[in-house]
Order: sequence, then C-alpha cells, then structure tokens
Amino acid sequence: MQLYIKDIIAKKRDGYLLSDEEIRHFVNGYAGDSITDYQAAALCMAIYLRGMTQSETVALTQAIADSGRQIDLTEFGTLTADKHSTGGVGDKTTLVASPIAAACGVYVAKLAGRGLGHTGGTIDKLSAIPGYRAELSGEEFRRLVRDNGIAVVAQSADIAPADRKLYALRDVTGTVESQPLIISSVMSKKIAAGAACIVLDVKFGSGAFIKSREAAQEMADAMVAIGRACGRRMSAVVNSMDQPLGNAVGNALEVREAVDVLKNACTTPCLREQSLTLAAHMISMALDISIDDALTRGSAALTSGAALEKFRLWISSQGGDVGFIRNNDLPLSPLSHDIVADKCGEIVAMDTQKIGEAACHLGAGRKVMTDTIDPGAGIYFHRKPGKVTTGDKVATLYSSYASKLEQAVEMLNSSLIFGE
Amino acid sequence: MQLYIKDIIAKKRDGYLLSDEEIRHFVNGYAGDSITDYQAAALCMAIYLRGMTQSETVALTQAIADSGRQIDLTEFGTLTADKHSTGGVGDKTTLVASPIAAACGVYVAKLAGRGLGHTGGTIDKLSAIPGYRAELSGEEFRRLVRDNGIAVVAQSADIAPADRKLYALRDVTGTVESQPLIISSVMSKKIAAGAACIVLDVKFGSGAFIKSREAAQEMADAMVAIGRACGRRMSAVVNSMDQPLGNAVGNALEVREAVDVLKNACTTPCLREQSLTLAAHMISMALDISIDDALTRGSAALTSGAALEKFRLWISSQGGDVGFIRNNDLPLSPLSHDIVADKCGEIVAMDTQKIGEAACHLGAGRKVMTDTIDPGAGIYFHRKPGKVTTGDKVATLYSSYASKLEQAVEMLNSSLIFGE
Repeated sequence: MQLYIKDIIAKKRDGYLLSDEEIRHFVNGYAGDSITDYQAAALCMAIYLRGMTQSETVALTQAIADSGRQIDLTEFGTLTADKHSTGGVGDKTTLVASPIAAACGVYVAKLAGRGLGHTGGTIDKLSAIPGYRAELSGEEFRRLVRDNGIAVVAQSADIAPADRKLYALRDVTGTVESQPLIISSVMSKKIAAGAACIVLDVKFGSGAFIKSREAAQEMADAMVAIGRACGRRMSAVVNSMDQPLGNAVGNALEVREAVDVLKNACTTPCLREQSLTLAAHMISMALDISIDDALTRGSAALTSGAALEKFRLWISSQGGDVGFIRNNDLPLSPLSHDIVADKCGEIVAMDTQKIGEAACHLGAGRKVMTDTIDPGAGIYFHRKPGKVTTGDKVATLYSSYASKLEQAVEMLNSSLIFGE
Repeated sequence: MQLYIKDIIAKKRDGYLLSDEEIRHFVNGYAGDSITDYQAAALCMAIYLRGMTQSETVALTQAIADSGRQIDLTEFGTLTADKHSTGGVGDKTTLVASPIAAACGVYVAKLAGRGLGHTGGTIDKLSAIPGYRAELSGEEFRRLVRDNGIAVVAQSADIAPADRKLYALRDVTGTVESQPLIISSVMSKKIAAGAACIVLDVKFGSGAFIKSREAAQEMADAMVAIGRACGRRMSAVVNSMDQPLGNAVGNALEVREAVDVLKNACTTPCLREQSLTLAAHMISMALDISIDDALTRGSAALTSGAALEKFRLWISSQGGDVGFIRNNDLPLSPLSHDIVADKCGEIVAMDTQKIGEAACHLGAGRKVMTDTIDPGAGIYFHRKPGKVTTGDKVATLYSSYASKLEQAVEMLNSSLIFGE
C-alpha cells in the first residue's frame, strides 16, 4: 500500500499507533529529502504531544539506526560493550571505566561525541592529549579493538544521519524534550555503533536535563527496554548531578583526574566508585558473570595497574603522547585564579548547571558548535559541599583570557551556596 | 522584550495562552520569511492539539488580516455588507442575495474566491458569463460600489497573504481541521475585505466538511464572536448540505438558476428562501432594522424585479454580456446525458459530496488549482429526494467530453440512494 506522510501525521495527531512501515517511511523519506522539514516538524510535535508506545519507539530507533552506516562488530560476539552517559558536568567516567573493562577482557569499541554546552564530550577530553587521533578508518578502528581490546573514535556523520537531521530540526521547533524522540535519538546511535552490551548512565539533578531521580529511573528503564527490543544486552544506572562528578571540570583537568584514578591516587572516591560500577556492568554483561564477580575483577584490574596500562596502550595506539602520564602534568591554561573562603561556614549546595556554564565560559565547552575548545581551561574544586574555614582554597579557575577568567569567577561564586 | 519563535512554540505546546504580541510576531515573521516553514508547522500542530481561546483566535485573525492590503470601505459607514459561505454544492445564493440587498440600499462590496474541489466558487460562476471582469483596480471597485451599490471581484493575492502561506502549509502538514485555524483563515480575509456587516452561511451534512448541525452551529457562533471582537456586525445561519442547494450544479447552470429566482420563475423554493434570508441579514445589519422588516423589504425587491435590475446593472458594469438574461440561455456544454428512473420508487437520500465530485469530473470544478473549468459543464436535477415514477427524468449531465460524461453518470448513479 502506498504510504503518504500527510496521513501518517494525521494518524499520530489523532492519537493512533503508527506501524513499523509508517515510521520507516517517515525516517527514510526525511533522511532522503522526499519528506520536507515542515512535515517532519508537524509529526515531531504530534509525537511530542501524543507520545509513542514502546513498540513505536523501537521501530523509530531501528529505522534511524538503519538510515546510515552500521559498525559490524559481530566478529567479537557478545564481548563488545559500550557506555553512554546522558551528560554531566565533570563526568570523565568513560576514561576510567573503558580501560578497566578492556583490562578484564571486554572489547570496548566506542563511538563518542563532541560536547555542546556545559563542558566537552569524551572526544573533547581525549583531544586534550596532544596527538590523539579521534578519526580512524573503519578498518583501523576494528584492528585496534582486535589488538588492544579498546578504541574510542569520534562518531562520524554517516552514523544515524537521520538523527542528525531530526535533532537539528527538533532543536528549533520545540520538540527536544519528548521521551520517545530522546530515546530514539540516543539509542539509534548506540545500535548503529554495534556493541552487543550497552550500559547507560542516566544523570539527574541541578546539572542534568532530568531533574528528579524518579524521572531518571523512568528514562533509564525505557531506554533499557528499547535496547533489549533491538537485540542488545542492556543495563543502566542513575546518578546525581547535584554537584560535579569529581573535582575537575574541563578537558585537560578531567584527563588528569581520570589518570589519578587509574594510578590509584584518587582523592575523589565517588568518581572511582561510579567508574568501577559502570565498568562492572560492562564486564558482567559481556562475560556473562554476576555483577559482584565483575566488580571484583574490575577492582583488581584497577588496583593492579592493569587498567592504567590498558589506558596507556589505548592512547598511544591512537597517536596520543602518553609522556604526561608519569607526572600527570597535561598542560593547563596560563591564567588562573583561586577562590578562597573569606569566612568559616559550609558549602551547602552547588548549582551544577551554573558551574558547567562557568567552565564553558572559561573555554572548556562550546556555546555553538563552531566554537573552539581551550583544552587547558576549566575549574578544579579543592572543596566540595561540606565545612570550610577562612582562607581555605575552594576552587581554582583556568583560562587563557583575563576577562573570561574574571567573569567566570563571578559566575562560579554565584553557583556555590554558603551557609553558616 | 525580544520574542523568539522557539519560545512561542514551546508555550503553546505546553498549553499556555499566547499573547497578542507573540501571535503577531509569529504571523508577521512567517509572512516575512524570518520564521521558517518548519517552525510554523510545529506551531500549527501545537495549536491543533492544544487549541486557542477566543482572544487568541481574535489576535490571530487580526494579525493575518493586517499582513496585507485592507480594503477601505469607511466612506460607506455601516452600510457595507458581505456574505460568506463555508462552501456547498450548488450554492449560488451570493448571486441572488447580493442584488437583493443592493436593491434595498446595502453596499455590497465583495471579494470572492475561485473554488477548489467540488464545484466552482462565486468567481467561477460569474466567469461563466461572457465578458465578466473579476479583476478590477481598487479605485474602479470602489467607484462601482459607490455608483451601483454592488461589485464582486476576485480576492487578490495581496489580501491576507499570511493566510495564503499558512493555508498551503496546513494543507500538507495535517493541520487543516483546527477550529481556531479555520476561523482565523476565513475571518481574516473577511476583515481585510472591509465590510462593516458580515453574514456567514455555515453548511453541514453530506456535502460539507462539517457533518452535524450542532458542529455547524458551534462553528457559526465562534466565527460570529471573532468577527464582533474585530469590530464587525455579524450574523450567521446554518444550512444543510444533505442535498445540493437548488436543482443546478455547475457554473452556467447555476447562473441560470439564480436568474430564474431573480425573475420570480424559480422552481426551487429552498434556494429562494435561503437567498432571501441571507439578504435579510445583510439588510438588517446594514440598515439597523429588524430581521422581519428586512425580510419584507428584500421580498419586495425580489418580487418587484428591482433585484433583477440590480443584477443586470452589476453584471454589465463589470463587462458581462447580459443578453442571456432575456431567455436565460447561458450556453451549456455540447454533450448531455439524461438519467431516467427505470422503476417506480423514491429517492430517499443524496450523497452531496459524491454529486460534487461528479460535477467536478464533468469539468465544473478543479481537482488541482491549475485545472481549467468548463463553464457549461454540470448537472441539472429534475428530481430531488421524493417519489419517482418509471421513465421520469431524474437528472441531466453536461460535459464537453464523452468519456467524462460516461464516468460521471456512473458516479452520479452511485450518489442517489433509491428506496421502494
């Protein structure tokens, strides 16, 4: 039967279910330019307001994944694992969890993104390491995974191209915050990336777009269900973003902090713990062992230094200069400013979103996609929520520009809520 | 405050009221190409699903009217009246009611449309009269209204241009059947056309897009309220389209039937009555007299032949050849076919929509805007619902093409429901 986008729009508008064929007709037509932006916008708004069932969301996810190249990792069986975070300030868990999992025999073949807003994405963090090559051919990528058990590259434009087009459209038509549209956008890229096992890290709180733990859990459950329906092993954790994860926010600062964890020199137990948990989920699914056993193996790999060695191998194989690891002295931006407590009291809360914005202003993130990132810019927190004494260094800000530094200090001050 | 279309879309999407300024920002931005088709489509879908209050619909109507040229009829005070029908098969009341009202001292300054689907619009019917000029300059139009009390021209592209653009968009994005969007589309053009008094004829039934009398009354009430809020005198009638109005469907056929009514030679009391009622509403509002008095005056103008004289003056002043009026012999298409009852029984119902489609197929209407109309094509009904005897002529079809005639006979047969 001939399908018409006008009928598909009207059907969703009136609250009916769309068939797999109708959803695929829309995605392929939009990716192939036979369906216009305005028809896609009308349908996205109808989906936003009418919702989609799980089976519709699965069909949408699979159709978007099928709109471009799909990475073939079948040679690794179920041993491939990927990790996805919905985005947080100071979240460098990928840099820690991936080499831990790889050190335990998991094949980590990861396509990662560049960040927009707040702080950089995983590829931006890795790009703070001089020489790191985030663009590899499909063959080289697979070879590194085969040889080293780990490779992390930038997601290329031919992965889920329908998502790229749809996301840009949703961004300007008020249709971003729709659960089926968010889920299909995230999961289609993960499905196309080819890993057999996927662990999701869904963030909530003041620094995340989801504000409550309940909503994050609901989103996590929904994404897990969609991934399973697409034939993947899935698990998910939810984590608070009511404060930045760890002490470092900014690309080089975060790489340094990740290396600290891998060197067992970590001063932030929360980061170590979250990274281990994520690694354990990857290991458990890929090796088909219990989460407790996986945690034991992951901890051992971290403590023994095996994870650090895997990290070194990974970075150097992708062209990165690993010389900085010895003294963990990846360069920071030349200008810095210390925020010092001018009275005794307590940091009772942090506005993580504002902290992200301050870091972004310093040069650690992009306000628009064409902005250039200053890898050495960012914020290091010497104190997190808790007691402070007069004269305590609370945070150090790094930037290449005095005026940005000055403005960010003001932004950061307003993000820290002090009590007596 | 700077307004952003993205925020306006999100506000309506979330069910909030839009301010006059926000609505105007949308309409002007869309008409002026600073707001994209896809943003307009998203907003139309949000309006479709969330609705609009009366005050929002007023603001939308006024903003669309303000997007182009507005006819200035203020020199005629409250004496100008316009009539609008939501569209029916065989509806030629404008051709009768307008000269009746004009003969009673009302200034009828009408912008009318060409039809799409079913049968032709008022301008298509008038264009069946050789020489009739539907395009006049603004000055000539006003002069004819001033001198003759009546002029009817085609609505030009500079009237409510935002509506033209919005309607084309709604047509392909599943957002046509939204009450606030329908009302603002219709009423913005009426407001821009400048008449002080407006009577609406809202159709319902098998030949109309509104199916029930209740829904038609609701639409009529809503449109009256919007027109009044825009400062116009308003009234409305609702009329069934469960059968064509009168016996004639097709442009020349309908002009002939209208002339029959004006000559008091009418065989279809329903058409005479509806036309008189509409004229009475125009007269009552414009002259500020009771509807009963208006009806008395209108009847008198019809019976005395004053309305026919006004018709003749109107048509000849706009270049139309009025010679046909004497014998009422406006030419019909060369080929014809009679449908004859092959048994005794009763026509219990007519599918008016199908009749419209059959007439359109004969050449009386347009399937797409670029189709050319055959003015002499159409259907004349010798019988309407009621008893028929074997051998009675039920209908005669006219066309210029034998194949179309044959196909339309089949279509028409399936539109007439016979009982014993």
